Amino acid sequence: MTQAAEMLDTFPADLGRVNRAALVHCIEECFSCSQVCTACADACLSERDPAGLVRCIRGNLDCADLCDTTGRLLSRHTGFDIDTVRHTLEACAAACKSCADECERHEHEHCRVCAQACRRCERACRELITVLG
Amino acid sequence: MTQAAEMLDTFPADLGRVNRAALVHCIEECFSCSQVCTACADACLSERDPAGLVRCIRGNLDCADLCDTTGRLLSRHTGFDIDTVRHTLEACAAACKSCADECERHEHEHCRVCAQACRRCERACRELITVLG
Amino acid sequence: MTQAAEMLDTFPADLGRVNRAALVHCIEECFSCSQVCTACADACLSERDPAGLVRCIRGNLDCADLCDTTGRLLSRHTGFDIDTVRHTLEACAAACKSCADECERHEHEHCRVCAQACRRCERACRELITVLG
Amino acid sequence: MTQAAEMLDTFPADLGRVNRAALVHCIEECFSCSQVCTACADACLSERDPAGLVRCIRGNLDCADLCDTTGRLLSRHTGFDIDTVRHTLEACAAACKSCADECERHEHEHCRVCAQACRRCERACRELITVLG
Repeated sequence: MTQAAEMLDTFPADLGRVNRAALVHCIEECFSCSQVCTACADACLSERDPAGLVRCIRGNLDCADLCDTTGRLLSRHTGFDIDTVRHTLEACAAACKSCADECERHEHEHCRVCAQACRRCERACRELITVLG
Repeated sequence: MTQAAEMLDTFPADLGRVNRAALVHCIEECFSCSQVCTACADACLSERDPAGLVRCIRGNLDCADLCDTTGRLLSRHTGFDIDTVRHTLEACAAACKSCADECERHEHEHCRVCAQACRRCERACRELITVLG
Repeated sequence: MTQAAEMLDTFPADLGRVNRAALVHCIEECFSCSQVCTACADACLSERDPAGLVRCIRGNLDCADLCDTTGRLLSRHTGFDIDTVRHTLEACAAACKSCADECERHEHEHCRVCAQACRRCERACRELITVLG
Repeated sequence: MTQAAEMLDTFPADLGRVNRAALVHCIEECFSCSQVCTACADACLSERDPAGLVRCIRGNLDCADLCDTTGRLLSRHTGFDIDTVRHTLEACAAACKSCADECERHEHEHCRVCAQACRRCERACRELITVLG
């Protein structure tokens, strides 16, 4: 069991009818994608031609920030506000999509790994939106 | 002129048809609201009865994170992604509304100041959504 | 291979004489500890007696923020500033120690899991300080 | 009175022998510097020659993250941990110094404004370290 799953299991109050597997998966993808996007922005800066990667770097930075905030929100279950969570998941999915689209235009290995992380996180956000009802 | 306005004025490329006043105002409200919500969560922890303030604390933490991320996104103008920005502003406005609604239920001075900061930030986000077109 | 390790392997420039294993391990512990501390603060809020847990919640919030920032700094290798990195690792280790000390005073399962994550992250930070020279 | 000062004034418990003016000033400089560094990194990406600014961008990103985290820590007064705060202020001052040194090597207006914000924040952190005793 991962740390995020273990923390969800030790939550002391009723979690309601939440889909635990989808929630844990989304938390993990958010934190992972935040790290990968931070690293990809930096790797782009160390490429020979950073001028061709400025849209990629900016997309990485936005995506890192939104994944970070989304992962934090999803790690909290006390006094849950469905409207805030749903809009945040939409924003995170949009940032992941935009970042993946841009990363896929480049042949760098770090962009390839990053695009995959973004696609997984986008999917996890959209699945969680669906099961939130 | 504030720092945020000065930074916008020194941006070296074309900003397009953005409403500068609405953008600068929203950036400032986001950073200010993030600080105020962080402080309100902590002040709630030091009240005699934190048990009655748990929803308020949670709302403060979400709002602080979303204001922080929104302020960062709005401070970037390179390779702007309208879809991500709009969803992020919606998420931030929802968090501000939720936090203000909760803070207004309590008589503590810090909750009163925080509710005002959240209402201003919510309004600034919604106005920026409108002018983004 | 984990995502953080994969990103380090695809970095396009010379990393110098860095200890890759210690670096990757510390990045992973930082991101994991940030999630766990965020979740522990929230779980404390949902306990029957949050008043007895206010120091724990505050420590969790500081530790989550420092782990987050430390994980981000360590994910960047371009134009590395040793002085900033060393002080940041010291700050992160101090926050982890303080949070673990406090969590160990409570019998809640989430505090136990969180204390372990903080001890691992503190150790990873101190080991990285040592190998940084 | 600024928002940060107003929040400090409404804190419900004893703040101890803290120097309020130095604390409020440091909180304000941290949040302001975080915004300015985020904007400067982005402005650098939109310059004609981002390749010459990669160290500046990286320094901006580190400084934005550390100022953000430092501003949050200083906004919390419950269960204050002096050791964590002191190390965090040292890390923030180091990041501000490093970022200012780099920004001063460039003639761009945004780098000039950013260097000034970093110097002010570095000074505010060092002054607060001194008065913390």
